[in-house]
Amino acid sequence: MNTFGRLFRLTTFGESHGKAIGGVIDGCPPNFAIDFEQVQKFVDLRRPGTSLLFSQRQEQDKVQFLSGIFKGKTTGAPIAFVIYNKEYRSSDYENLKDLYRPSHGDFTYEKKYGIRDWRGSGRYSARETAVRVVAGAIAMQILDKFGIKVFAYTSQIGSISLQKAYTELNLTKIYANDVRCPDERLADMMRQEILKAKQQGDTVGGVVTGVIQGVPAGLGEPIYDKFSARLAYAMLSIPATKGFEFGSGFSAVQMKGSEHNDLFDIDERGNLITKTNNSGGIQAGITNGMDIVFRVAFKPVSTIFKEQQTVDRQLKKVRYRPGGRHDPCPVPRAVPVVQAMAAMTVLDFLLLRQKDGLMIDVEY
Amino acid sequence: MNTFGRLFRLTTFGESHGKAIGGVIDGCPPNFAIDFEQVQKFVDLRRPGTSLLFSQRQEQDKVQFLSGIFKGKTTGAPIAFVIYNKEYRSSDYENLKDLYRPSHGDFTYEKKYGIRDWRGSGRYSARETAVRVVAGAIAMQILDKFGIKVFAYTSQIGSISLQKAYTELNLTKIYANDVRCPDERLADMMRQEILKAKQQGDTVGGVVTGVIQGVPAGLGEPIYDKFSARLAYAMLSIPATKGFEFGSGFSAVQMKGSEHNDLFDIDERGNLITKTNNSGGIQAGITNGMDIVFRVAFKPVSTIFKEQQTVDRQLKKVRYRPGGRHDPCPVPRAVPVVQAMAAMTVLDFLLLRQKDGLMIDVEY
Amino acid sequence: MNTFGRLFRLTTFGESHGKAIGGVIDGCPPNFAIDFEQVQKFVDLRRPGTSLLFSQRQEQDKVQFLSGIFKGKTTGAPIAFVIYNKEYRSSDYENLKDLYRPSHGDFTYEKKYGIRDWRGSGRYSARETAVRVVAGAIAMQILDKFGIKVFAYTSQIGSISLQKAYTELNLTKIYANDVRCPDERLADMMRQEILKAKQQGDTVGGVVTGVIQGVPAGLGEPIYDKFSARLAYAMLSIPATKGFEFGSGFSAVQMKGSEHNDLFDIDERGNLITKTNNSGGIQAGITNGMDIVFRVAFKPVSTIFKEQQTVDRQLKKVRYRPGGRHDPCPVPRAVPVVQAMAAMTVLDFLLLRQKDGLMIDVEY
Amino acid sequence: MNTFGRLFRLTTFGESHGKAIGGVIDGCPPNFAIDFEQVQKFVDLRRPGTSLLFSQRQEQDKVQFLSGIFKGKTTGAPIAFVIYNKEYRSSDYENLKDLYRPSHGDFTYEKKYGIRDWRGSGRYSARETAVRVVAGAIAMQILDKFGIKVFAYTSQIGSISLQKAYTELNLTKIYANDVRCPDERLADMMRQEILKAKQQGDTVGGVVTGVIQGVPAGLGEPIYDKFSARLAYAMLSIPATKGFEFGSGFSAVQMKGSEHNDLFDIDERGNLITKTNNSGGIQAGITNGMDIVFRVAFKPVSTIFKEQQTVDRQLKKVRYRPGGRHDPCPVPRAVPVVQAMAAMTVLDFLLLRQKDGLMIDVEY
Repeated sequence: MNTFGRLFRLTTFGESHGKAIGGVIDGCPPNFAIDFEQVQKFVDLRRPGTSLLFSQRQEQDKVQFLSGIFKGKTTGAPIAFVIYNKEYRSSDYENLKDLYRPSHGDFTYEKKYGIRDWRGSGRYSARETAVRVVAGAIAMQILDKFGIKVFAYTSQIGSISLQKAYTELNLTKIYANDVRCPDERLADMMRQEILKAKQQGDTVGGVVTGVIQGVPAGLGEPIYDKFSARLAYAMLSIPATKGFEFGSGFSAVQMKGSEHNDLFDIDERGNLITKTNNSGGIQAGITNGMDIVFRVAFKPVSTIFKEQQTVDRQLKKVRYRPGGRHDPCPVPRAVPVVQAMAAMTVLDFLLLRQKDGLMIDVEY
Repeated sequence: MNTFGRLFRLTTFGESHGKAIGGVIDGCPPNFAIDFEQVQKFVDLRRPGTSLLFSQRQEQDKVQFLSGIFKGKTTGAPIAFVIYNKEYRSSDYENLKDLYRPSHGDFTYEKKYGIRDWRGSGRYSARETAVRVVAGAIAMQILDKFGIKVFAYTSQIGSISLQKAYTELNLTKIYANDVRCPDERLADMMRQEILKAKQQGDTVGGVVTGVIQGVPAGLGEPIYDKFSARLAYAMLSIPATKGFEFGSGFSAVQMKGSEHNDLFDIDERGNLITKTNNSGGIQAGITNGMDIVFRVAFKPVSTIFKEQQTVDRQLKKVRYRPGGRHDPCPVPRAVPVVQAMAAMTVLDFLLLRQKDGLMIDVEY
Repeated sequence: MNTFGRLFRLTTFGESHGKAIGGVIDGCPPNFAIDFEQVQKFVDLRRPGTSLLFSQRQEQDKVQFLSGIFKGKTTGAPIAFVIYNKEYRSSDYENLKDLYRPSHGDFTYEKKYGIRDWRGSGRYSARETAVRVVAGAIAMQILDKFGIKVFAYTSQIGSISLQKAYTELNLTKIYANDVRCPDERLADMMRQEILKAKQQGDTVGGVVTGVIQGVPAGLGEPIYDKFSARLAYAMLSIPATKGFEFGSGFSAVQMKGSEHNDLFDIDERGNLITKTNNSGGIQAGITNGMDIVFRVAFKPVSTIFKEQQTVDRQLKKVRYRPGGRHDPCPVPRAVPVVQAMAAMTVLDFLLLRQKDGLMIDVEY
Repeated sequence: MNTFGRLFRLTTFGESHGKAIGGVIDGCPPNFAIDFEQVQKFVDLRRPGTSLLFSQRQEQDKVQFLSGIFKGKTTGAPIAFVIYNKEYRSSDYENLKDLYRPSHGDFTYEKKYGIRDWRGSGRYSARETAVRVVAGAIAMQILDKFGIKVFAYTSQIGSISLQKAYTELNLTKIYANDVRCPDERLADMMRQEILKAKQQGDTVGGVVTGVIQGVPAGLGEPIYDKFSARLAYAMLSIPATKGFEFGSGFSAVQMKGSEHNDLFDIDERGNLITKTNNSGGIQAGITNGMDIVFRVAFKPVSTIFKEQQTVDRQLKKVRYRPGGRHDPCPVPRAVPVVQAMAAMTVLDFLLLRQKDGLMIDVEY
C-alpha cells in the first residue's frame, strides 16, 4: 500500500531518520528524455532549511537515480531513485519514544504494527513527500508534451484568505515567494500570520488550491475511479490534509440547480466550452476539457513548542515539550506536493485512456 | 473500474433504463447468516417513489440473490444479485439524445466512449447506487458482529444547517423522517427548503454527515491507502458529490495547533481516548479508536424543470426543457448510500488488518 | 479473486446447482457490435448433453445479457450476463454431503471456508467455465478485428497422441468432431479411448494445444507479468489442469543452446521472422510476432463410477460410489475454455500496450 | 508490472550493468527480527563467479538495507534494499548493440519500448533474480516460524534425470554441491553434462523440482488465483523457463481416474492425509495439507560461444559471436530463485487467509 497509481505507479520507501528515502516509478513512458536539473529544482522547492517559514533541518535532498535510464532517456524499466538522509538528530526524539504525542501517528502506528520507529516520526514523517515530488516532477515533464500544465498555490493561511480566482492570478509567479501565493500582497500577510504563530510556539493551517490546464475531455473511469474520486484520494494521502473539494465544492450546497449548472457554449474557435466552471472540469466523474480546479485543507502542524499533556506507553498521563525542528505551517512546502500528486493522477488517467491513442502523437 | 474495494469487493453493473442493475460481492466472509429482510429494508430507504421529496419513478427495487449463499449462509463464493428495472419511460429522453444536458455526463461519456446510452442517463444515472446499498447492508450486518455501527444523516439542505453535533442527536431516529435528519425541527425546515425549490422547478444541494462508531484503533494503510484517503475516494465516487472533509475538516484551516491537537487522556475504564476529536478518529491515516466523523457535500441535482440553453451533438446551440422524473434534492436518498460506502470501506480495512485476528473471535 | 484480467476483466459468479451462473465484463472496448449468435454458438461448444463423450446433464446454457449494450453495441459500461441453471439433480449429491470425495475440492473448500455447498460441487464445479466461454467469445470477436486468431485443439487423450505439428493441421476443422482434434483419424482413436474408459466406469486425461496467430510483437509486461507467465496463470486456473508449457516446453530441457536458439531471418516480404519457433512466440516474456504455441495438461476426471474408499467429515473411513452425471474425459469440453482464456489474455495485453495506439486503427 | 504479490509485495528495479539492482518489499509482517546473515548467505547461493558451472562475472552481491527496519526488526514500513553492481564490462556488448541476438529479449524489448539498454541485456538480464532471492530469504525466515519449509533442487540436466522421488532424498544436502542436486552421484553426472556443453561453447537446460512442506490446508483463492495458478505464474516469471507442472503433472495425461485419485486416509495421529499425492498438495486450487510438489523446465542459455547468423536493426542478416560472461546452464543458479519465488507465493497466500487467524499464533 506504499504504491500510488495504476499504470504510472510510484512505490516509496524510507523513514525520516533512516539511511535514505526513495522510490521506484514503474510504468513511466519509455524513450523520454528527463530533464534531471528541472527535477532537482522542483525537489528543492519543498526542501527544508531554505526559508524562515520552513523547518530548519539542513538537507540537500540530492536525488540519485539508480535505474531505468539509458543515455538520458527512460527505457520503460522501473526508475529507482534515492535521497540519502544527511542531517538528522534522533536524539531530539529520545524523550518522546515512550509517549504518544497528540495528533501524531505515534499511537496509531504502534497500535497497527506493534512496533514504532520513533526517530523523527519514522515512516509517517512528511519527509516521505520528498519522494513524491521527484516522481511528480517527471510526470509534469511528460504532461508538458501533451500541453497539460499543473499548478498549485497557497490560497489561505489561517484566517488570511485569497479572494481572487485563479484566473486573476499569474500562476507562473507562485514560487516567487516562500509562501507560494502568487498575490504578493496576500503572500506578505500570510507570511506574517505564519511568523506570528511561530513566535508563539504555535502552528497554523491553510488551503492549497490546485489548477490543471489542458486536460483533454474524456479522462476518468466510472464508477468508482472517477477523476474526482482519484484526485481526492491522492490529496488526502498527503500528511496533515483534512478535506478536499473541486469546482464549487462545499459552496455548491447553498446553490440552486439553476445557478450551479454550467451551461454549454461554443467558443470563438468552435470548441465546446462551459460558461461557468462549477464542475471544476469534471462531470459525472470524467473530465470535460475545462480547467480542473480543486482545494485541499491542511490542519496546523501538530508539533507545537508549548508544554502539553499527553499519555505514555504505560497509559500514564505525562507532560511533554517537543524537540526537533518543524514547520510552523505545513502549507508552503505542501504546495509542490499537491502539484506532484495532481500530476501523477492526471498522467495515470492519460495512460489508461483507450481512445485517440496514448503516447503516439508525441515526438519526444 | 466498476469494482470497489480490495478484499471486500463490489463489482456493479446496469443502466437506469436497461434490463437490470446488479452486483457481485467477492470476498465476503463465509459462514455468515445474512438477514435478507433487513437488506431489503435498507434498500427501500433509497427507493424512489416513496416520498414527495424523491423522484416519482415507481420501482420496487426487489433484490434477487443468484449465488454465494447456501441454506441462508454465505459460502465464500461470490454473491451475485440483480434488481430488475420495472418502470421506466425512455421516451422521456428521446428529445435529449442528440444534445448535451448541462452538468450531466452526456458530453463526457460520449467523449470518453464514442457512444452513449441516453436512456435515463444510462450508466451514469444515480440508479447505480441502489446496488451499493445492497452490498453496504450486508457489510453493516457483518460489522455489527464486531460492535461497529455506521450512521449517516442529512446535516444541511441549502442554507438550512444543523448546528448540533452528532453527539447531541439520537442517531437511531435518522430514518424517522424522509429528510433523514434526526432533529425533527430542522428536518421540517429542510423539507420546506426542498419543496420550495421543487415548486420553482429548481433543485437544491446539501451535506451528509457520517459517523462510524466502534472502529478499533489500527485500521488504515500507509502511505497512500490512508483510512481518510480511502474514505474520501469512496464518498467522491457517489454521484453529485463535490467535497469531503473529516474531523475538523476545512475549519481546521483557521485553528492554531494548540487548539487543534487532540490531547490524549485515560477514561474511567482505563482506555486511552482523546479529549477532543478534531482528528475525526483518524491520525496519520490510521484509526485511533475514537468515532470516525466526516462530511460530504452534494451539489443540487442538474435536472431542473426550466428551459435552459445548451449545445447539441453538432455543436449547435439549442434550448431544451427536460422530461423524466427526478429528485429535487440528491441528499435524502444519498444518506443510505453514504452509509453503505462507509460500511464497505471499514469492512475492507478490517479484512486487511493483519494483527489481532480477523473473523476468528466472532461466533456467527 | 473471482476476477480475471487487468484492463479486460471478467468477474464470474454462480454454483453448479444454484439459480444461475454468470459474469460481468469490465473494460470491454466500447462501440463494438457483438455478434450474439456467434457468442451463443461458441458457448454451445462446451455445453453438456450434446455428445456421448460429455456429461449427460441437459442444459440449454442460454446466455442472457443484462447490461452494457445499447442498440447492439458495447457502451463501455460493464457487460453483465447470466445463464440460469435449468436441469440439475441435487439429490444425486445428498449422500456425498458428509464425506470428502477423493481429488475433489470437498475437503479443501470446507477447510478454507468452514462451509461447503455440496450440490454438484458448488462453486468448484467446472460449470463455472461456461461463463469464461461467453467472455472469451466476445474477446475473440474483438481480436478478429486486429487480425488475431485463437485456436485450441485436443492433441492427446490418454496414450493416443497426435504427432503432427499444428502447421500440418487444418485448424478450421477443430470443431468438426466431438473430440476437437482436427485430425479425423486420431480423433476416432481418441474417441475410442474415452469410450473405453467410460465403459469401465473410469476416466481419462489429455492435452490441449493452443495456437494464437497474428499477435503483434511487443505484448507482455516485464518482469512478473510476462506474456508466458500470465498465459500459464490463465491456463492453470482451468479445473483439472496439471501443467503448462510453451514453445519447446519441457522438451527444451534436453536440447543444446545451439539447437534451441531460434535464428532470426527475413521473410520474402521483408519482415523479421525466426527460422524455428522454440520460443513459442515469446522471448524474454514479450511476444516476437511469431505464432504463440502452448500445451496444457489435464488430469482424468476425479468422479469415477467405481466404489472407492474415502473419509467423512468425522474423519471416519467410508466407502462410496458417486452419483451425478459427469464427463469421462475433461478435454473435449475444455478446448473452448482454453481458447477463451487465451483470447482474454491476449486482449488484456493488447489493451495494456502503450505504443502504436490501441483501438484507434480499427473501424468497427 | 515490476511488482510481485498481493499482500507480500516485491517491487524490483535495476539493470545488469546499471548502477544498482534492488527492491522494495511492502507488506512484510512487522516486528520480525530478520537474520541478515542468513539473507546474505542465501543470496550468495546464486552469486556468479563461485563455481566453474557459473558465469565468471565477479560480483559480491552485497545487500544493503535502506529502510523498514528498526533495531533489527521489521516495522511494517517498506523494506528497501540495493545491491550495487561492481564488476561489469559493457564493452563486451558494444558489438551487439545494433543487432538482435537469437532467443534473447533484444528484439522484443526494442519492439515494446522503442529503446533498449543493450549493456549486459539490461533489464531482461537474469541478474534481476538476485533481488528476488533477497525477498525470498526473508519470506522463508517468516514461513519457518509457521513450520513451513521450502525446497528446490536440480532434478534434471540435459538428458541426466534424477529418478528418485523427493521423499528418497536428503533435502538438507541440496546446496552441498554446485549443481544443487542432493544425490551426489547424479550431481557428478550432471556437472559433467554441463562442463561438456561448456567446452563445446554450447549450453544445456534442465529441470528444477520444488517441494513445500508444512503448508496448512485451505490456502489458495478460487477461481482464478488458485494456488497452482499463482505458483505457475511465479515460476514462469523466472527467465529461461518453458514449462510448469505440479503433482502428477503432464504424466497425469496417461493415467486413469482410478489410478490418479488420491484416496483420503487417516494417519496414526488421526490427521486426514492422502495415500498418494498426484494432486501435489493442491486440490481444486486450494492446498490440502500434503506436500506441495512441482517442476519447472528451463531451456538452455541462449548465449552460446559459437558463431550464429542473426539480423541487425536495419533488418540485414549478419553473423555474430557473443562476448560477455555467461552460465553454461541456467539451472544451478536458478535453484534458489525457484525457492524464493515459491516462498513468496506461499507467504502471500498465508497473509490472505481469512480464517484461523494470521500471524497471531506466532511469538516473534
